[in-house]
Amino acid sequence: MDKPAAIKPILEQNAFQPGDRLEPATARLVEKRLATLGPTTMLFYRQPLEIVRGEGVWLFDSQGRRYLDAYNNVQVLGHCHPAVVEAVSRQLGQLNIHTRYLDDAIHHYAEQLLASLPVADGRLVLTCTGSEANDLALRLARQWTGRQGVIVSAAAYHGNTERVTEVSPSSYKTGQPPPWVETISLEPLNDPHTDARQWLQQETQRALCALARRGYDCAALLIDSIFSSDGIYADPPGFLQPAVELVRAAGGVLIADEVQPGFGRTGEALWGFVRHDLQPEIVTFGKPMGNGFPVAGLVAQQPMLARLAQQQGYFNTFGGSSAAIAAAQAVWDTLEKEQLQRNAARTGAYFKQQLQQRQQRWPVISQVRGSGLFIGVDLSRADTQTEPDPQLTGRLINALREQGVLIGAAGRHGATLKIRPPLCFNQQHADLFLSHFDTVMSELLAG
Amino acid sequence: MDKPAAIKPILEQNAFQPGDRLEPATARLVEKRLATLGPTTMLFYRQPLEIVRGEGVWLFDSQGRRYLDAYNNVQVLGHCHPAVVEAVSRQLGQLNIHTRYLDDAIHHYAEQLLASLPVADGRLVLTCTGSEANDLALRLARQWTGRQGVIVSAAAYHGNTERVTEVSPSSYKTGQPPPWVETISLEPLNDPHTDARQWLQQETQRALCALARRGYDCAALLIDSIFSSDGIYADPPGFLQPAVELVRAAGGVLIADEVQPGFGRTGEALWGFVRHDLQPEIVTFGKPMGNGFPVAGLVAQQPMLARLAQQQGYFNTFGGSSAAIAAAQAVWDTLEKEQLQRNAARTGAYFKQQLQQRQQRWPVISQVRGSGLFIGVDLSRADTQTEPDPQLTGRLINALREQGVLIGAAGRHGATLKIRPPLCFNQQHADLFLSHFDTVMSELLAG
Repeated sequence: MDKPAAIKPILEQNAFQPGDRLEPATARLVEKRLATLGPTTMLFYRQPLEIVRGEGVWLFDSQGRRYLDAYNNVQVLGHCHPAVVEAVSRQLGQLNIHTRYLDDAIHHYAEQLLASLPVADGRLVLTCTGSEANDLALRLARQWTGRQGVIVSAAAYHGNTERVTEVSPSSYKTGQPPPWVETISLEPLNDPHTDARQWLQQETQRALCALARRGYDCAALLIDSIFSSDGIYADPPGFLQPAVELVRAAGGVLIADEVQPGFGRTGEALWGFVRHDLQPEIVTFGKPMGNGFPVAGLVAQQPMLARLAQQQGYFNTFGGSSAAIAAAQAVWDTLEKEQLQRNAARTGAYFKQQLQQRQQRWPVISQVRGSGLFIGVDLSRADTQTEPDPQLTGRLINALREQGVLIGAAGRHGATLKIRPPLCFNQQHADLFLSHFDTVMSELLAG
Repeated sequence: MDKPAAIKPILEQNAFQPGDRLEPATARLVEKRLATLGPTTMLFYRQPLEIVRGEGVWLFDSQGRRYLDAYNNVQVLGHCHPAVVEAVSRQLGQLNIHTRYLDDAIHHYAEQLLASLPVADGRLVLTCTGSEANDLALRLARQWTGRQGVIVSAAAYHGNTERVTEVSPSSYKTGQPPPWVETISLEPLNDPHTDARQWLQQETQRALCALARRGYDCAALLIDSIFSSDGIYADPPGFLQPAVELVRAAGGVLIADEVQPGFGRTGEALWGFVRHDLQPEIVTFGKPMGNGFPVAGLVAQQPMLARLAQQQGYFNTFGGSSAAIAAAQAVWDTLEKEQLQRNAARTGAYFKQQLQQRQQRWPVISQVRGSGLFIGVDLSRADTQTEPDPQLTGRLINALREQGVLIGAAGRHGATLKIRPPLCFNQQHADLFLSHFDTVMSELLAG
């Protein structure tokens, strides 16, 4: 298979573009934004939103208008969940300090997290962001294996440090990955006749050979097991196993990036890789870990960390600070108390089924995929019904925003709706989404 | 000058070592820590502390014992400052979301920050950590200049990502910097006969040539203008100017890492580089920016950011989120309201003078350096009075901990006391420190 072309960032379809006509109040804010934050900032929606309040699955704009949030995964318990607000506020008033003093709260949290993971002799390293966790995971894998090659998915996103950007093809606007990176494509899984296990195995074999031809042995397969930015590929469970076996046989390790699928989102298990019955050497965590409070980390096998510690010091000022642990523990406890993983499974199954039922009415919905409350909806051109339609996707996302529903896009072509709400999203919320979806689809496809 | 040898991490002198005899309660916590967090964690002090509460310049352990904090710079306003606790708690209860919606609070903050900086046509990028800010700064400098070489100080620490670790010689336990990194030594400034401007100019010229010999042009001089981990070198103001001119003439840019000297610590100015009358192309921020809430960032010239944005997307999930801005704004306002920069200047001058006066009584105090509330005290062997004495430094730090005073060590040899308290540290606190210091020095040097 040919190397995939550089990917147009998936968000541009539905993002504000200079030149878009704006309401005066919005125009004033956008102007201030460009004058202060400048070129690297991006705003969702052709008419950007000024959000001022959040509660559960709801966001409210400066006009008091309410939006159903079917996009933001960081606030996994729902916006401003009182358990987290109270835990963090209390901790901030008492102590917020780094990890170079003893703190039993961090041990308590780590014990629970480690017990939930199949990593042999695992230890927790707390960082501040998922990017830092993936950056460290790559360093660990490469130091441990003595190899340099890394395999990622074709439209992967793993974070924003320079090293992690190199393994995040979805961040490239120009150019190609460096020679030590090879990508594997998920798109053939759109064809129902594709054997997913076999395809991934074949792709991984090809990737290993491509790395070898360029002089690189494989240090790691780095994957987000729900393939969020590739367009959400979840089924059948287990399809990654032969690929992982190949990487192991070649001397590499598995890094499971749980920044997206972790903490119950995929419904069937707490961790996305568990759906695929995998046993990673390294697992990384991020976004939802603190319901918006910055906390992230990784679990790796003890000897890998010991090897690192012999060569380099590692310390993360904000990683695992008292308030971060308070937030993470509140998220952990609330996920359990409110049975949000079970809700993700139940609501997600209903939601996916309802969306699939709409394929008959609107054949431009070429596929609906996902697990739990992480659902991808492919939109294709009405004439071919197979060619991705990023324009329709962008129009749909902006029209849903006008209706008071927030979602985003994913996939190499930006033609997959990415539905990824807080996990307190229930059946009534799904019905509300579907009702607006039906209205908007009817309008868009009528013209 | 020869390449400096790999540096023994500066903290090991005063850190807990496996094998240290511990009190039973402490031993139990250390055991849990090793079982959960493992090899990369490090604990301050031979008898690690379990800190449970903080207030102003005070930390309290689990036995209710009070410690004067002369070490922790992150809590720049003091531990648990109510202005930050209240601002963050309020914001967490209302909204805490990423920067892809409009938010006037971020513009307001950015306008104030930008107005305080001499960066031409500067724009703010918010990150979560200083490591992420320095990682991005290096990427910007190298993309912009099209060059790869970087010059840093010999014992620099700029953060924990893989790329930033490469420019942080103080993190190396084995090995040497990669060939695109060259270091400059500050230690000759210990000799009062050294002309600091001339030495830095000469060192920088040597570094440029060394890079050139290895095939690298210079992209950036990356410096923390107080040279925190090198051992704190502050005077005379302006000593960096000829070095910066050389780097500019060679086509490189100046990245001022304000993670340590920034936000008023050096007393004479809000930013450390201002003391040296420099005009950096990129300024990075971190630790104190949110008084412990994770928030960091950089300001760079608009065209540099525009170049980056053409090539790669950059987004930071937690960077500039609503709660982070609330924390940063509260810090900004409180620094002004409580005139903490002025306090840093006044208290710091008194403190430094008092320490210098002790050089006569204890000649092992070979030098006292610093600016504002960032003071370095070199300890040397009693017999030579010039050879660094990391053993004495470690014993002193541990003895001060027993007396209820917290400080740390810096410098290539770990023989510089690093005094860097919250900026609400006043003359009474300095006197209390000095009284314990006198007691401990008398005891240590009597034997």
